[in-house]
Formats: sequence, structure tokens, C-alpha cells
Amino acid sequence: MVKLTKLIDNATLVTPGEKSLLSKRATTADDILTDRDAAEEAAKDNAKAIDALQDALWAEGTRSLLVILQGIDTSGKDGTVRAVFNHCGPLGVQVTPFGRPSEEELAHDFLWRIHMAAPKKGVIGVFNRSQYEDVLVVKVRGLAPADAVERRYEQINAFEQHLTDNGTTVLKFMLNISKGEQAERLQARLDEPEKNWKFNPSDLEDRKLWDDYQRAYEIALDRCSTAHAPWRVVPSDRKWQRNAIIAATVRKTLEDMAPQYPKPDWKPSDFKIT
Amino acid sequence: MVKLTKLIDNATLVTPGEKSLLSKRATTADDILTDRDAAEEAAKDNAKAIDALQDALWAEGTRSLLVILQGIDTSGKDGTVRAVFNHCGPLGVQVTPFGRPSEEELAHDFLWRIHMAAPKKGVIGVFNRSQYEDVLVVKVRGLAPADAVERRYEQINAFEQHLTDNGTTVLKFMLNISKGEQAERLQARLDEPEKNWKFNPSDLEDRKLWDDYQRAYEIALDRCSTAHAPWRVVPSDRKWQRNAIIAATVRKTLEDMAPQYPKPDWKPSDFKIT
Repeated sequence: MVKLTKLIDNATLVTPGEKSLLSKRATTADDILTDRDAAEEAAKDNAKAIDALQDALWAEGTRSLLVILQGIDTSGKDGTVRAVFNHCGPLGVQVTPFGRPSEEELAHDFLWRIHMAAPKKGVIGVFNRSQYEDVLVVKVRGLAPADAVERRYEQINAFEQHLTDNGTTVLKFMLNISKGEQAERLQARLDEPEKNWKFNPSDLEDRKLWDDYQRAYEIALDRCSTAHAPWRVVPSDRKWQRNAIIAATVRKTLEDMAPQYPKPDWKPSDFKIT
Repeated sequence: MVKLTKLIDNATLVTPGEKSLLSKRATTADDILTDRDAAEEAAKDNAKAIDALQDALWAEGTRSLLVILQGIDTSGKDGTVRAVFNHCGPLGVQVTPFGRPSEEELAHDFLWRIHMAAPKKGVIGVFNRSQYEDVLVVKVRGLAPADAVERRYEQINAFEQHLTDNGTTVLKFMLNISKGEQAERLQARLDEPEKNWKFNPSDLEDRKLWDDYQRAYEIALDRCSTAHAPWRVVPSDRKWQRNAIIAATVRKTLEDMAPQYPKPDWKPSDFKIT
């Protein structure tokens, strides 16, 4: 296990201060994960371990974990939540999807709605999209002035520093799929009636901007992979590899946090139940 | 299955307009559920079916389900969430625990924080405690003027009518345990080190007020079991019976709602993915 998480770190971490070289990164992890059955089994074991660790995190009640999932359409953000967090169930895990901001959200600074959704002590928060949309879609589609977007990288870094300083560990995963894989997944949404509802014609508009999005992701990875909240780029063309990598990383992170059940300040004999 | 859900309805429903007769209700369901293995298997199947139905509810995107769990300390609210909703996972289920209100919440009317936590379209919301605390602990401990509490039953009924009129189905479960069962569960929290953190000395204060709580529950059941949002009293001394009953009821409710995947207003051939 230790060995694999080390390999996974090597394969996914964007070293703070270095270039992410996104375009050179693989969208499969065939070099470190070859046995699909074993990987699926390990992911399940890790999901169970995450459940146990979350229980201790809740009991401890002093810290939280924030898992940020970013990736273009069809990259598998929802599927990741299912695979990694369904063993925890909804009790200690809170998923927040960030879509187009509401009028009220737009009337505040871009981190306002993000901060409101930050996980409270004891909880694992999962963001399906996040503050990074404000330097991704917003940048690519020119939805805010360029100089405002430019300032956001440092603002995001400062915000994440604030969260980590206050007991929230921040894990950031970019689900990296190839353009060919996205084509197949979009086609499946067209071809398979039970997936039709997931298809949104506007996804094709974003697909035309593929290169612009890749470039915007690369800049975000370069500028916001920090020592306190590094980015991890997850090869995600194969869902089982993606799940195995993220489950192992979340488990390792929680194990390093090592949440402890609180010691009672009473003795059982202090009480008599009548 | 139809037969069992009918038996369950008979055993649990508080008929609107009739007395709940809480003190006469059984805290076990040995008359309708005898085979523990079969019941656990059925609960699992139902949990899986709830997952599939929730997916359709989300895709449909026009309605929601609100599941209210009420019950005294140790009655098993958290355990119910795990048993019934872990197959859905955190993606489409949002659990809101209601503890002691904050200063800001107290500065608003008692339904303000409840309304804010109402599930949005497509989501199953689960309340761990709810608006009913404002006619339970608040009544028993005299935390609000008696005449204000008195008005709340009708206000709650009107609020739930409003929710149902706007597409939210409301399911209300009172987890009914005996005083002896509570003693055992509290003792376990004292005796088993890994459960120590769940023990709160103030629970013993509430236990001393057992009869007052039972009476307050009875009044709430009598006055707030409505045609649009009836109460169900669930025999909960045996966790496996409790889980089986609630999972079957939630599944049946979702099946009756019959959420539909939306039909696309386009043909697959309208699009070419390049």
C-alpha cells in the first residue's frame, strides 16, 4: 500500500513551484495500475477505510477534509463521488456542485459561495467543480475582465491557506481525460437512451474550446499547486484507475491526519442509568 | 412486497384526525417481521432500489423527497440514515442535523432554518431532528412561551402543506423505542470505549423527563399527522426491524412518485461529435 501510494504521488502530484506540463501528462495509468480486478478490490477496501476514518474525524470534531474535483465535461466527477464516498454515505460527507452562479452569488466576490460551502469540523466536503471555475470557464469564455481573473490565482492560494490554517486539509484532483475519450463518452450519452438526459448540447460548444480549456487548466495547475494544497492530475480515461488512485490518496490523507476519538473527561462509574 | 408494505402501513401510520395512542404502540414489530436475515436482505434490496429511484428523481429534476427522522436520544436516527441511504451515497442525498439553534437562527422564526435546508428539486433531504424539536424539547423544557408553542402545530402543518404543494413529498418517521431499550443503549455508550464519545451526560437529564417527552411526542403526532404529511411511528427497539420498515416505506413512496427520466427534445442524429 505504501509503495503504491508513493507511485501514485509520483504520477499525479504537481510539484509546487514547477510547471505542471499538463499536455505531457498521461490520461491512463497503465504503468502503475495493470490489474483491474485488484485495483477495484483495493478501491473498495479504501472506500471502507475512508468510512472508518471519517467516523473518527466526526467524533474528534476539530478538523475537516475538503476534496475538490475538477475536470471537463464527462471526466467523471460524479462517478468518483460514488466510487470513493458511497461507503461513508451521506452522513459525514457533503457534496456541493457548483454550477452557473446565481444573481446573488454574482453580487458577491467569487469566493463567497465557496466559503459558505466549506465543510464544517468533522465533515468531508466534496466540491464538484469549485473556485477554479472562476479561472477556467470564466477565463475561456471571458466572463470577467482579464485582470480580475489574473488576480484570482493568488486569491485562491490565500483562501486555501486560510482553510488549511484553520483545520481543513485541502485535496485537489484534476480528472484528466483525452479528447478522444471525451468524444466516446459524449457519443454514449447520445446513443444510450438512459444516458440521454445527461447530454447537454452546450457541452459541444465547450468541446470546441478544448485547447483553450487545457491551457486554462495548465495555468491554474502551475499557479495554484502550493505546498499547503497541491494539485494532483489523475489519469482518468479508465474509470477503475481513476477510482483506485483517488480512493488511495484520500485514504492516505486521512491516515496522515490520524483523527482520534476523544477521551471522555468522565468515568463510566460516574453515571448510573435508571 | 405489496403485502408487507400494507402491513407496515397498518402498523406505523398515524391516521390523520385520529389519536396516535403513542403509549399503546409497540416498540417491536415481531408480529409482522420475524425473519431477521430475510428482513436485512430486503432492506438491502430496498436501499439499492432507492438509489435507482433517486437517480431518476435527479434526472427528472422537478420534485424532491423530504424524510424527517425524529426520536429521543439513542433511538437510531444516524443508524437509519446509514442503513437506508448509504447505497445512494452523498450525491443525491443531503442530511441535515438540527441541533441547538444558533443565535442567528433564534433571531428568526423557528421555520426559517428548516426552510433553508429543504431539499432542492431532484434531491432526497433527510432531517435528523427537525421543526418538531420546537414542539418537543422546546415544550418540555419551556424554552418558548406556551402559547407560542401552541400555535406551532398549525404553523408546521401549513408549512408542510406548502412544501407538498410545491413538489416535495414529506415522509415523517418517529423512531419509537422503549425506556428499557434506551437504558441499554446509554449503558453501552458508557461501557464500550469506542462508543464513549457518543455519551453526553445531558442525555440523562432528558431521560428523567421521559414521560414529558412521550407526552409531547403524542401531542405532535396527534396534531400533525395530516393527509399531506402523515406521521409514521416505527417500532425501533430492534434495529433490523426499524431499517426494514423505513427502507420499505421510502422505496414505496418513491415508487408511487414514479420519477421519469426526461425525454430529450433532440434526436441523437442532430449532433455530430468531432
